[in-house]
Amino acid sequence: MKTKDLFLASALTLENKFYDLNYIKKWIKVQNNNVNVNINKIDFKDLKGWNFYDEYSILKHETSKFFSIEGIDIKTNWGQVSNWQQPIINQPEIGYLGFITKEFDGVLYFLLQAKIEPGNVNYVQLSPTLQATKSNYTQVHKGKTPNYLNYFTNATKNQIILDQLQSEQGARFLRKRNRNIIIKIEEDIKIEDNFIWLTLGQIKLLMQEDNLINMDTRTVISGISIDFDFNANFNSNNVFLNSSNKDKPLFSFDELIQFITNRKCFYDLEVSSISLSKMKNWIIEKDCIKHVENKYFKIIAAQVSIENREVMQWTQPMVEPSQEGICAFVCKKINNVIHFIVQAKLEAGNFDIIELAPTVQCLTGNYRTDGHESLPFLKYVLNAKENQIIFDTLQSEEGGRFYREQNRNLLIMSDDNLSNELPENYIWMTLNQINTFIKYNNYFNIQARSLIAAISYI
Amino acid sequence: MKTKDLFLASALTLENKFYDLNYIKKWIKVQNNNVNVNINKIDFKDLKGWNFYDEYSILKHETSKFFSIEGIDIKTNWGQVSNWQQPIINQPEIGYLGFITKEFDGVLYFLLQAKIEPGNVNYVQLSPTLQATKSNYTQVHKGKTPNYLNYFTNATKNQIILDQLQSEQGARFLRKRNRNIIIKIEEDIKIEDNFIWLTLGQIKLLMQEDNLINMDTRTVISGISIDFDFNANFNSNNVFLNSSNKDKPLFSFDELIQFITNRKCFYDLEVSSISLSKMKNWIIEKDCIKHVENKYFKIIAAQVSIENREVMQWTQPMVEPSQEGICAFVCKKINNVIHFIVQAKLEAGNFDIIELAPTVQCLTGNYRTDGHESLPFLKYVLNAKENQIIFDTLQSEEGGRFYREQNRNLLIMSDDNLSNELPENYIWMTLNQINTFIKYNNYFNIQARSLIAAISYI
Repeated sequence: MKTKDLFLASALTLENKFYDLNYIKKWIKVQNNNVNVNINKIDFKDLKGWNFYDEYSILKHETSKFFSIEGIDIKTNWGQVSNWQQPIINQPEIGYLGFITKEFDGVLYFLLQAKIEPGNVNYVQLSPTLQATKSNYTQVHKGKTPNYLNYFTNATKNQIILDQLQSEQGARFLRKRNRNIIIKIEEDIKIEDNFIWLTLGQIKLLMQEDNLINMDTRTVISGISIDFDFNANFNSNNVFLNSSNKDKPLFSFDELIQFITNRKCFYDLEVSSISLSKMKNWIIEKDCIKHVENKYFKIIAAQVSIENREVMQWTQPMVEPSQEGICAFVCKKINNVIHFIVQAKLEAGNFDIIELAPTVQCLTGNYRTDGHESLPFLKYVLNAKENQIIFDTLQSEEGGRFYREQNRNLLIMSDDNLSNELPENYIWMTLNQINTFIKYNNYFNIQARSLIAAISYI
Repeated sequence: MKTKDLFLASALTLENKFYDLNYIKKWIKVQNNNVNVNINKIDFKDLKGWNFYDEYSILKHETSKFFSIEGIDIKTNWGQVSNWQQPIINQPEIGYLGFITKEFDGVLYFLLQAKIEPGNVNYVQLSPTLQATKSNYTQVHKGKTPNYLNYFTNATKNQIILDQLQSEQGARFLRKRNRNIIIKIEEDIKIEDNFIWLTLGQIKLLMQEDNLINMDTRTVISGISIDFDFNANFNSNNVFLNSSNKDKPLFSFDELIQFITNRKCFYDLEVSSISLSKMKNWIIEKDCIKHVENKYFKIIAAQVSIENREVMQWTQPMVEPSQEGICAFVCKKINNVIHFIVQAKLEAGNFDIIELAPTVQCLTGNYRTDGHESLPFLKYVLNAKENQIIFDTLQSEEGGRFYREQNRNLLIMSDDNLSNELPENYIWMTLNQINTFIKYNNYFNIQARSLIAAISYI
């Protein structure tokens, strides 16, 4: 079967020949119960191996490995504030996020890992088969290698069925990207204890619940373009399955590219390094780097201990958000096709000035109180009626860097009262168009991709 | 008529209702005869307003405008040399390259300018209607504005028929990009003396001659995707027109993206600033910055004077190449469709590690003598038989920065003896696939785009 047909069949399959959804949810709970995670906030001086260097310019590991916390100065004509400074995570190495898949009875199954991420609200969430650094991957460091790494390093061209570069959060990471990769194997494979086979349909439904599917899984899944046969009759009530079927978009690809070029040329983004100690409005205390008004997020120091079969302990800096954020797509049937309101959004760490973001993305201020009334569509999303809400869940950011960061993820179907006219940084796109842009790197940001990944066709 | 149909009709039209090709060539010659250009090489100390700063760290204008010459240090695992240093042009502002087009009798005409570029071998070449800086465009500097600028600044969304961000030469410019834009007007327009209406078919044929069409025209034209009606019968002998007609590519888009991701993840490119005076193997003399072995290129100081109706004089740094380079695409009919050998190539100034380049691109060493025998396909191109050569011309680089830089541009049709198996940084793409990738920014480099622009369907 062709890859696109395999993806489609898997997306439409809830019947897992190994486990049903209830079993899987219980299995995650058991994995969670079997582990004991402690995170204690500590002082920076008690971090082991992590130090400030050059008079508090930078916080990094003594080996210069892992990541560093640096200061940046941002000048831009985007938004209300034309100049600010902030800490950011610099982790230049490309990370690898990979799934092993295998066909059973004509359906593609994905191998997920119940992975402990200390920062997560749920400590254990389902991650891709492999999360590895480029050093792991290219074997620069000999040493303990992650499970299943060799399947990826030895993958032949024919085994690779998806391979994309995708961005991380532009407000927190400086131009970070990950390689999102899916391979398909034919041979038998030993399934380790904390691994499990799921269909794409199951993964998508689990994404519509709080904090079960981790961010890395969501980003890889978002790259899968469900390719509908335009003549197929699915006999389904699913609004996306039916409407994506005949794609008559409001705008052509050329028009969408014109919109993006226009926004990229209109906005400036100038990012330069500064010392952490010289950031205006940020102060370094003994146990955190924080904004003077306690806004946005803090850099904290954490001692982590994880106990299951073995005990692991380490210390590291983490990012602690000041509040829960919100990300929402508003969509509407226009010309009988569902269209999404996509936002061209500038974030400090973006690789190329703007990326395409959800209709509403408000992560760096309290969306409930902080005077965001003027933020387009925020009120519309918060006032949506029950029957307009396709999903409304809490999703965690990467638990290896973020301390209990979870954001509200919503998909809202508009009523007919919502105008087709949009503010200047917004444009309508169909799901097929979004899927196409996601394939080309650095068009859609991770918050948008995460929402798109959760769209179910069942 | 739809834009894509207008582009196609214009590409297939040689009959210009205003001027035929012979007249146009004569007209360019007249423009050339009417101008007197002198470039004298001078010492750096005689540059007016241009100085070295910070102990010969950087060469720039006292206003910090225009561009600067800076030193960079490059670390990479690409190619034979893992670390080198070189001067590079830093010009962070996005340039605007724009065409005004207008429909006459159902055919789209492009308004070209006979533009004097002092560095060019032919001083006058045909440029887009507008070449402007972002400052011109956004009216940051009040002052004399370029001809026709107001058509672009006032263009409505419906008038814009192409709008793309495209890269400049990655070996000479640091992450420089231009906005390539085409607008279509309905109203009458006054044609200034040195402007002329051409069809797309005429522009493409003129590109197949030496040094008539400047680089800026070539890059904008390359973004035009000729959209063939798959059922049309063109009754033509043109090999591209006939073969693009039924597109059965060797590789799918997903496979091409996998190839690109793989190459981007495999190669590292680490670029950092260094002082011009500290570049290894480069020396600053009184009148040039040059490589100790006189390789690659020199930074020189030039005094320019142009006399036609008025006299203009100024001084500026320029880049003088050490030799003529070569760029060539090799193509082959596979599955009855023409496929091009596309190279994933790393250059120091690239925005995103690698860009897609011609089959052969050899600009920074003497391809005839410098021991490039091992360069894939170079020998094949140089030994091509007459009947394999679709075009073989000399084309100038941008005459505002480069001193008499011209490179040999070839398009070669392979014989059946050329294997379909390619070395690891090379892949087969059809013209339709190339056209699609060009639309998304930073996939194809300017040398590749320039060659693609010159493909004629007549």
